[in-house]
Amino acid sequence: MKRLEAALAETATAVNQMLDNLLPAVTSAERRVVDAMRYSVMGGGKRIRPFLVRHSAKLFDVADAHALRVAAAIEMLHCYSLVHDDLPAMDDADLRRGRPSVHRQFDEATAILAGDGLLTMAFEVLAHPDTHANPLVRSELVLALARAGGGAGMVGGQMIDLEAENAQLDLPAITRLQALKTGAIFEFSCIAGPILGQAPAEAHAALRDYARALGLAFQIADDLLDIESSEAVTGKPVGRDQVAGKATFVSLLGVEGARKRAQDLAEHAADRLAQFSNRADLLCDMAQFVVDRRS
Amino acid sequence: MKRLEAALAETATAVNQMLDNLLPAVTSAERRVVDAMRYSVMGGGKRIRPFLVRHSAKLFDVADAHALRVAAAIEMLHCYSLVHDDLPAMDDADLRRGRPSVHRQFDEATAILAGDGLLTMAFEVLAHPDTHANPLVRSELVLALARAGGGAGMVGGQMIDLEAENAQLDLPAITRLQALKTGAIFEFSCIAGPILGQAPAEAHAALRDYARALGLAFQIADDLLDIESSEAVTGKPVGRDQVAGKATFVSLLGVEGARKRAQDLAEHAADRLAQFSNRADLLCDMAQFVVDRRS
Repeated sequence: MKRLEAALAETATAVNQMLDNLLPAVTSAERRVVDAMRYSVMGGGKRIRPFLVRHSAKLFDVADAHALRVAAAIEMLHCYSLVHDDLPAMDDADLRRGRPSVHRQFDEATAILAGDGLLTMAFEVLAHPDTHANPLVRSELVLALARAGGGAGMVGGQMIDLEAENAQLDLPAITRLQALKTGAIFEFSCIAGPILGQAPAEAHAALRDYARALGLAFQIADDLLDIESSEAVTGKPVGRDQVAGKATFVSLLGVEGARKRAQDLAEHAADRLAQFSNRADLLCDMAQFVVDRRS
Repeated sequence: MKRLEAALAETATAVNQMLDNLLPAVTSAERRVVDAMRYSVMGGGKRIRPFLVRHSAKLFDVADAHALRVAAAIEMLHCYSLVHDDLPAMDDADLRRGRPSVHRQFDEATAILAGDGLLTMAFEVLAHPDTHANPLVRSELVLALARAGGGAGMVGGQMIDLEAENAQLDLPAITRLQALKTGAIFEFSCIAGPILGQAPAEAHAALRDYARALGLAFQIADDLLDIESSEAVTGKPVGRDQVAGKATFVSLLGVEGARKRAQDLAEHAADRLAQFSNRADLLCDMAQFVVDRRS
């Protein structure tokens, strides 16, 4: 996995630079919200979604300058979701990526606005001519991200998750929750490549299937980490699902069953990229990485 | 003003129908957030922004089916901003358009998510091929709305407004606050017409100037209403700026000075549409309406 770690680090450096360029600090009266937006997006993280955008784009020889802008946009959207999910009315989390969450570092009102600003800016970046010369590509990116992020995607998934404490969800219901809450954004990240590369439908389908298996494997691994890891390692509170009495993949499948299911999904994800042979090696590594990660 | 009232009512009916079509109720597990989104957008309101979109579009013979989708998108964005601004951490408002605000009718977490969902959906609607056959037009609409709604627009303005209690703003600062907080969205609503109609730069400039004057007149009238009207008429709490000790156009210009400035702006707005002669009559009526309105 040395080559994957190197590639992840390289993407993190490149996307951090792009985020810094796209979202510079300001000195005008609204600087507090811009500072909070920057605090959120510059706070580290593994940058898995940006990695998926860049490496799905490489399959179709997309210019990296274009892919990096989409990578930055998806990270903005991901960070907005973390900022809002951490709010007292939602998950009430004090820690994020080992630092105070945005509403703890600033205040609740600023955190709400910073999330709103990041979500809005993700679309600004995608629609800008610098992201792709062809406006059809830009429109398709916007449409795909909006669908992935909205009521039929991430926002809907978070709603179901909030209500999950009161409803013992079964496996199909948990799977759908995950597909909306985290899967849709993984899917966007992976089809950003074929959209940018104006690739044929088979390529879209392969990356979509890869992303769905990857996203589900990621969430199962997250549930395993929630009971097996520690706050010091993950940089955020752990064991919360158990305390809340929520059904998870682990409570439904058991630890061993969940681990096996995640591994099967990682292998299925890699299989779907066979048509790209060794050009997809890093994406295949990533499928294994999301299962093996310790944080 | 009979013709304006009729035109406003006609737009309200048409945009309500479009919103109902674009955002149907669902029965799946995430229905609570969709219900909250619908509660927010179907809650009435004068639909001034949709009116501006439709009537700026009519100047360029844009198909009404296209203009109505953009009108619905801007209303989604406007409603998201109301839902989030009403939250306890922001303006803490229990009433909106004469009904409980979304977090009072549902709960805070659902209100945060409903706002996020409406903001996201506004971009989904704009980027969809049904909004315009030309993807360049769709991209330009998305880019313009994102700029108007983000940290350098509405979100930035709301940040300044939240901090205004601690900083006695002067007239240039209040004017900039307004230009960001409410002006940018008025501006988007008015340039949506020339964008949809792929109109020449002079038309863009005229509508932009009209919108800026209109937006400022609207805000000054709002400040006047805040001290002169009652909750029963406006459907929301009044007198809050005075209680909070915030500087407003009225505290800086006096009641008579503020009223004169709003009237001058309404006339300036109308003047900038002279090139469209009587085709712009309703937009000119609107400039006077925002100054004269009692709620």
